[in-house]
Order: sequence, then structure tokens, then C-alpha cells
Amino acid sequence: MTIITFTEQLRTNGRNDCVDITEPVQQAVHRATIRQGFVTVFVTGSTAGVTTIEYEPGLVKDLQAAVKRLFPEELPYAHHESEGDDNGFSHLRASFIGPSLSVPIVDGALQLGTWQQIVLIDFDTHPRTRSYLIQLLGE
Amino acid sequence: MTIITFTEQLRTNGRNDCVDITEPVQQAVHRATIRQGFVTVFVTGSTAGVTTIEYEPGLVKDLQAAVKRLFPEELPYAHHESEGDDNGFSHLRASFIGPSLSVPIVDGALQLGTWQQIVLIDFDTHPRTRSYLIQLLGE
Amino acid sequence: MTIITFTEQLRTNGRNDCVDITEPVQQAVHRATIRQGFVTVFVTGSTAGVTTIEYEPGLVKDLQAAVKRLFPEELPYAHHESEGDDNGFSHLRASFIGPSLSVPIVDGALQLGTWQQIVLIDFDTHPRTRSYLIQLLGE
Repeated sequence: MTIITFTEQLRTNGRNDCVDITEPVQQAVHRATIRQGFVTVFVTGSTAGVTTIEYEPGLVKDLQAAVKRLFPEELPYAHHESEGDDNGFSHLRASFIGPSLSVPIVDGALQLGTWQQIVLIDFDTHPRTRSYLIQLLGE
Repeated sequence: MTIITFTEQLRTNGRNDCVDITEPVQQAVHRATIRQGFVTVFVTGSTAGVTTIEYEPGLVKDLQAAVKRLFPEELPYAHHESEGDDNGFSHLRASFIGPSLSVPIVDGALQLGTWQQIVLIDFDTHPRTRSYLIQLLGE
Repeated sequence: MTIITFTEQLRTNGRNDCVDITEPVQQAVHRATIRQGFVTVFVTGSTAGVTTIEYEPGLVKDLQAAVKRLFPEELPYAHHESEGDDNGFSHLRASFIGPSLSVPIVDGALQLGTWQQIVLIDFDTHPRTRSYLIQLLGE
């Protein structure tokens, strides 16, 4: 049983930028030569999240519209008063989606569906360089 | 330390059908004879999710009403334009609930509460055969 | 590879009480002397959840306002009819946030961001003693 952790970086545009990270995760599975196990993807920071979605431009737009509708920018946020920040809604979107995702690996293959991609969504209000971890455990 | 993965299938009615899968997960724990470890449940596909809930008919209805209220069918979805699909809201519900859940195992027992069941929710718009994975890691 | 599980308890005020549990999780990492691995935090019960947030009073208020707005107390809940309970909205909030979170450990350090704390949120309608698990796996 081995555990291997890769730290990755990517540049986002912020504002619900939704990035498909399936390919780097798949590459990490191959590099680590894990046949049976799982991968955990974890994004560092409190204004980004990780989940799965069918990664096509229409659905990405729908996801962005949904987070804006459910956690509107226009509401008053106590976080803006207490910290002088402008991203209270970004934090809430991130806490609801969550920073972490685990996907099983069987016979060396990530067990995703054909239309199920791993995405990192940057909810912050400005472009950022994001760090995330790809951690593999298995044999 | 051992890792064992079971692939399970079930038939759903779609349309937010919420299926209690605690029993097959418990059986997998017993079959794998894991005493200390954890189980990860992962549903393949981008229109279903896995979480925990008190599995009683009233609350299942409340959950179904909540996902309809938060991600309404009546809104326009870009996914319907781009892909000719009818299930944009199904995808969003799935991305918010998430496809994956981990539950610790201590002394051979899943550490769920008495009124905390593991459920697979099929958000798609029609009945489907669903595959999901029960992966056990431990000793 | 070792697996160690700690069971922790804490007293909450219920009603969306949001408790920072980063310190006990960090202590468990140190006690278990895990250098490379990950921790899974899991809350037992169907009316509490675990996620990450920047733990500052303004944002905690914003999170509490958001869950009240998205899952209002005033709606009718079938759970109240079927079980005579008063906490249908508590269950829904818990199922959406989820009971479980995994965070990688690298060189003995939890890979959280500076403003990213682990929180247990008690959505129930009254004060409770909560049990949760901190499970470490690694070497």
C-alpha cells in the first residue's frame, strides 16, 4: 500500500471559473502506478470547491447561474463588514460545494462516468493562482 | 491493510428517486472482514449523488421538494440548448450533493447514527440502471 | 501504513451552531504521528454536517443566514407530520453539507489554507452533545 501526493497549480479567472482537472488527476494515477485504490482531490483555500459535472459549456453556464441565484452577490454579508472583504458569497458557495472529492481507482482506471469530469471551481472575485492536491492511495 | 472494491447495480425510477443503500454497504463491510478502516461509496455518472439522511418517507419527500425548489425544472438551462438534453437541473442537483461519501469503520461497524442512512439519489429524468462502487480500506 | 480513529465529543447550542474543530483534528494528527496520509472527519447523526470555512464571526453569521434562506423553517415539512419532529429543515441542511470531509496530510501538516478551518455545524433545533470521528490513515 502506497501513498503519493502531488501538488498542482493552476491559474483561474475567479468569478465561478470552472476548470476541468480530470486530465491531471488521470496523469497522476498513471505516474503513481496505482492499480487498486483511490484518489482524493483537495483544494487549499476557502473560496474554491471540487466536485464532478458533465464538462460542457452549457452546463458550466448553468452551474454558474445556479450559484449566483442561490448565493446572490447583492445580499448584505457580515463578512464584508467584519473583514472589509467583497467575497462573502464566494465563501458560502465554496463551503456548500466542499473542498474535497474521492474517486475509486480499479485496475488502474479512475471510476468516473463518461460524462463525469472532475472540476475545480474558483468562486473568488478575482483571478488567482490556485494550489490543489492530488493524493493517491493504493497498491 | 487491504483494499477491496465491490461494484453494485440498482434500478431507480429517476426523478429524485432516493434509495437506501445502507444494507449493501453493511454487507460489503462484513464480506471484506474489515475491522478498522473506512468505506467510500461512489456513484458513477453525473446525474446522481450520494449522501446521508434519516430514511423515512416524510423526509425523503422533503428532500425531493427541496431539490425541486432550489434547482427548478422550469428555468431555462443552457445544457438543453447545447446538448438537446432535458436534465440540466438533474446535473446541478448531482454536482451540489456530490458523488462520493466516506464513512469510518470501527471494530467492524459502520459509524453511522441510528437515524443516519446512506442514500443514492437519482436526479435524472427517467428510470435508470445505476452502477455504484463500495470501496473498503482497512485491516 | 497505519489507521487510527479518535472519537471526540463536543457540546453545541444547536440552531446552526458552527464550531471550529481544526485544533482537535490537528492534535490528532500529531498524536498519531502521521507524516504522509490524510484525515477523515465524520459526524455521527443526521442533523449535523462537516465542511471548511474561514472561521470568523461575520462569515459564520452569513453561513447561518444562507442555510435559513435556502431551507426555511417556515415551510411545511412532511417529516413533521410523519415523525412528529420539528427539524425537517435541519435534516435537509445536513444532507446538503454532508457528514464527512477528507484533508490530506503532507510532512505531518494538514493541507488547509491559512483561512480554511474545519467546522462542525449542528443544524438541530436544540443544544446537543455531538460525537464525531477523526480517522487518520498514513505512515
